[in-house]
Amino acid sequence: MQSRFFTLRDYPTGTPPRELFELRQHELPALDEGEVRIRNTWLSVDPYMRGRMSGVRTYVAPFELNAPMEGAAIGEVVESRHTRFKAGDKVRHMAGWRDVAQLKGDVLESLPDMDVPDQAYLGVLGMPGMTAWTGLNRIANLREGDNVLVSAASGAVGSLAVQLAKAKGGTVVGIAGAADKLEWLEQRDIHAVSYKGKDARQLGADLEDACPEGFDVYFENVGGDCLEAALDHLKVGARIAICGLISRYNSEAPDRGPSNLANLLVQRARMQGFIVADHWTEYPHFLEEVGPRVARGEIDYAETVEEGLERTPDAFLKLFEGANRGKMLIRL
Amino acid sequence: MQSRFFTLRDYPTGTPPRELFELRQHELPALDEGEVRIRNTWLSVDPYMRGRMSGVRTYVAPFELNAPMEGAAIGEVVESRHTRFKAGDKVRHMAGWRDVAQLKGDVLESLPDMDVPDQAYLGVLGMPGMTAWTGLNRIANLREGDNVLVSAASGAVGSLAVQLAKAKGGTVVGIAGAADKLEWLEQRDIHAVSYKGKDARQLGADLEDACPEGFDVYFENVGGDCLEAALDHLKVGARIAICGLISRYNSEAPDRGPSNLANLLVQRARMQGFIVADHWTEYPHFLEEVGPRVARGEIDYAETVEEGLERTPDAFLKLFEGANRGKMLIRL
Repeated sequence: MQSRFFTLRDYPTGTPPRELFELRQHELPALDEGEVRIRNTWLSVDPYMRGRMSGVRTYVAPFELNAPMEGAAIGEVVESRHTRFKAGDKVRHMAGWRDVAQLKGDVLESLPDMDVPDQAYLGVLGMPGMTAWTGLNRIANLREGDNVLVSAASGAVGSLAVQLAKAKGGTVVGIAGAADKLEWLEQRDIHAVSYKGKDARQLGADLEDACPEGFDVYFENVGGDCLEAALDHLKVGARIAICGLISRYNSEAPDRGPSNLANLLVQRARMQGFIVADHWTEYPHFLEEVGPRVARGEIDYAETVEEGLERTPDAFLKLFEGANRGKMLIRL
Repeated sequence: MQSRFFTLRDYPTGTPPRELFELRQHELPALDEGEVRIRNTWLSVDPYMRGRMSGVRTYVAPFELNAPMEGAAIGEVVESRHTRFKAGDKVRHMAGWRDVAQLKGDVLESLPDMDVPDQAYLGVLGMPGMTAWTGLNRIANLREGDNVLVSAASGAVGSLAVQLAKAKGGTVVGIAGAADKLEWLEQRDIHAVSYKGKDARQLGADLEDACPEGFDVYFENVGGDCLEAALDHLKVGARIAICGLISRYNSEAPDRGPSNLANLLVQRARMQGFIVADHWTEYPHFLEEVGPRVARGEIDYAETVEEGLERTPDAFLKLFEGANRGKMLIRL
């Protein structure tokens, strides 16, 4: 059986050009004992993957050049030589960016049995959802009544973060760009603030209007002017969870850095970076808490879907254009 | 009896000029019931006082213009109409910047009975010492074997921080400027790194040499290039306690901000501002732990002493020139 997969030709500087991604194929060898062959049905592209294209080890090793790229995926077992899996089983794994994967069964996760679509396990009940839950609860110590600010608030992570925060009863403000994203937030009773065409000072003025008391928690996905504006609107004892800094990922020049870090001192505030993989042992706990709410339709999760393996790099690049609402997915 | 005291004529921008401070005097009224008159023997000047000259409420109210300034002081009771105090008692209070203070007895603290000089309660066993202990233990969660970096490492706070950190057994690196400060650090087995004439990159290279493994804890007193260099040398899970940002206090332009805050994310590190007053209920605990070590001579605390009330503003201004080693004091 043939497997088609994407490889990376080189490590880009700045925004990766489309030609960097090469679609190749090879004939898969017969299954070894313990191996499983999976036909992928859904692929995930995520902002963190830009870090794996840097050629420098950060918190995750870089993609190997000219080798199959990796990422979260969901698929159906077509052939198995592993006792735990049989043909037809639905599984989640990290051999994305390809149509057919062949893996040791030990690295596969069976999809949980909940009344949600399969692809939810790549989004609201997958790594992005777990990231939102971890950042709020384990890093920012979200409490009842906290005022919460979320940047990239309609993205895969942010869109769950605002809803989990809203359930705690405080004022929740989401920063986003496009009109449909702002509308989505407002419909969920989240104060929506647009960052478009604003510097940190102007953005800060809008945050002031949306939440004059200031924020107990800032869930940071963006960096740059969003961080600077947020630092001016912290309550005493505020907690900032740094989940991502997408404004920086394609940047070639060094960042300017917020001019107002001294507010951490004045407000006795805390800023902490986190990586969801460090907290993965808590995934069952997250699933137990959030899964039933998703199944009951209490949590609204958006998806932006591209069709066909060929579109995977395009879907990935759209993440940096702010073109997705909710989880960016590829349906095969 | 006359009291001579300093007042502030105006709120300065940038480095305060000497003429801003005016020495005045007035005749003290007779003691009311519950009041105590104290002849001050030692006055403290501290970097945080610059914040009280800004005219803007930050974490502490600004000094009132043309009114007696305030600050930590130690003195001897000369007259008392409070049941808890009698003439000759030694006390600590906040009516500094003057020679004779008249206060309600309820705001006075009796000096603890330990075998240390009186003025130690303004330094190593006072607010600066408590600040070092709190930042390391309560904010940065110092653990056995941690590698610790301290900026302004020979100052009133830093000089205790390096010694408390050293006692935990890890590599301790102190950033300082003048040759005698670097020498003082080296004599205590602290790796001394000079910041003089270096940008963040060069300073970072020296930190790399001093502690190639990177730091678990950074005790931040300075900001600017020190913070930027430190952010490049954090271990996974590092904790930064922001105690002060003295490089900024007289600055008129907005700060540039570190260009490498993304390292907080990569290293899952935490940065937290703190103000020692929030933790003052722990002062007895600190005194019990650190006091006996000071009394036994196990902790070396430097003092820089100016003589006479008239020199109080000069002593204060020297803090920003890096002219003090250890605690800056005025002996009356």
